[in-house]
Amino acid sequence: MRAGEILAGDTRAIARAATAIENRSPDAEPLLRELFPHTGKAIIVGITGAPGSGKSTLVDQLVRVLREEGRRVAVIAVDPSSPFSGGAVLGDRIRMQRHHDDPGVFIRSMATRGWLGGLARTTTDMALLLDAAGYEYVLIETVGVGQDEVEIARLADVTVVVLVPGAGDAVQALKAGIMEIADVFVINKADFPGAGALEREVKTSLALGSGSEQPKPPVVLTVAQEGRGIAEALAAVRGRLEGGDRCRRAVAAWSVALREMLRERLLEGFSDVNFDAAAAEVASRRRDPYSLVDEWIARGGQ
Amino acid sequence: MRAGEILAGDTRAIARAATAIENRSPDAEPLLRELFPHTGKAIIVGITGAPGSGKSTLVDQLVRVLREEGRRVAVIAVDPSSPFSGGAVLGDRIRMQRHHDDPGVFIRSMATRGWLGGLARTTTDMALLLDAAGYEYVLIETVGVGQDEVEIARLADVTVVVLVPGAGDAVQALKAGIMEIADVFVINKADFPGAGALEREVKTSLALGSGSEQPKPPVVLTVAQEGRGIAEALAAVRGRLEGGDRCRRAVAAWSVALREMLRERLLEGFSDVNFDAAAAEVASRRRDPYSLVDEWIARGGQ
Repeated sequence: MRAGEILAGDTRAIARAATAIENRSPDAEPLLRELFPHTGKAIIVGITGAPGSGKSTLVDQLVRVLREEGRRVAVIAVDPSSPFSGGAVLGDRIRMQRHHDDPGVFIRSMATRGWLGGLARTTTDMALLLDAAGYEYVLIETVGVGQDEVEIARLADVTVVVLVPGAGDAVQALKAGIMEIADVFVINKADFPGAGALEREVKTSLALGSGSEQPKPPVVLTVAQEGRGIAEALAAVRGRLEGGDRCRRAVAAWSVALREMLRERLLEGFSDVNFDAAAAEVASRRRDPYSLVDEWIARGGQ
Repeated sequence: MRAGEILAGDTRAIARAATAIENRSPDAEPLLRELFPHTGKAIIVGITGAPGSGKSTLVDQLVRVLREEGRRVAVIAVDPSSPFSGGAVLGDRIRMQRHHDDPGVFIRSMATRGWLGGLARTTTDMALLLDAAGYEYVLIETVGVGQDEVEIARLADVTVVVLVPGAGDAVQALKAGIMEIADVFVINKADFPGAGALEREVKTSLALGSGSEQPKPPVVLTVAQEGRGIAEALAAVRGRLEGGDRCRRAVAAWSVALREMLRERLLEGFSDVNFDAAAAEVASRRRDPYSLVDEWIARGGQ
């Protein structure tokens, strides 16, 4: 794989590289190493929300508005229910089709791989690839609440949390800690009953939480299905890019990512260990896990 | 810390050991090593569901029924909104009080530590401690959907997913992959409208998914607040313990846990690395992350 083709924006080369990253192919790292100095220009926006919150439609509309401005846009869909990743109803697929035909838009879905971890790492590499390839905006769509979302939020410049009226989402999000990762709240389906109440609820909890020095995340109402509020949502995202926060966040994200990369590389030296056989010994209590790990450490990576 | 005291069921010694495990104290591992041969007897039940699903009340009721049978029961609450972990309204706290006064019940809440990972590892160690201490049932309460839940489900003998009517839970759970970790479904608040519809929805999706060789998870209706359906839920959990699946699951869980333990130990040798300083170099593109990791690997753990 040639870095030059990717830097030139060759869509086929980008797609091949994306596949190499997703498969953790040995070709991926030398390429990323070469591309790395050319990254750091794209604006990375995480968009997270429960299935049914309409965040795929919101992403679709954001792509439309950014394209009208002439921006190149990439979408990484790590939501198994997203139409971008192929899990949705026919109508959604047809709606997305227009972007598939637009050379200024790159769409990539990522399998969640049975949650065996590494999703944040793969997403980081994918975002770097698309950044190097000259996409000015990289939109990362994730579902739900969990460690993956928090890790992906860490790598994004701005994280948008999408809520909908009447789903009890706000309360759930509050309790589960997703409020803390939000830089912008979008209340989608704002034409549904309860949108005003949800807006007040979110604003009240924002007023209660966090110190007064921190700017409060703005709350934007949208009806993505009809394209309403999209410009306002984009303006809110851009508003969060101002100020010195971006660099501080990037350092924090890399601090975690470097540890993760080191951890992975260290474990590669133990690829000859039969973990399943060892697990059977532990499960039957013939061995204890602590002394097994001691032995592996003593022997060192091969 | 003396293993003998824990094996004898001394509550204070158990509490001290639990604190050592939660703080990742260096005292914890030698103790766990000594306790390990005495583990493997407890039945570990994971109970997961969204905040507001009433799973804390369900746990409370399961504890009551198990105590009536004379079983010793431990509860590990990793849900930040659980009354067990102290995040709930006063009424819930008062309700739990009776178990706090019962020497046959051990309750431990675990902070989620800002989702920095390691929760599954700490929970595994905590469950081993309580197993060695002679608790016949260890109930692990978790919230929501995410990698943590899946990892904790892996270590449980049986995983119960709690749903409630009208919350759109079933659809969300389906899409987000939580259905796959469920061994038993409990539809709580079954006196609410829509319980029957939710039951049909779950059963339909179970019929559609997975092969026919696999036994389908039973669906139990409860009104935990009034103690209704609790015996049935417990019977469903016990039903899932029969058959040879338990050992196969334990081997799979240990295979993942051993990797995680090795990974952690390997990283300990790099505690002198200043990851934040390195991250600042990467964020400013003065260095690329790949060559930094190469250097660390070449130097080796200290």
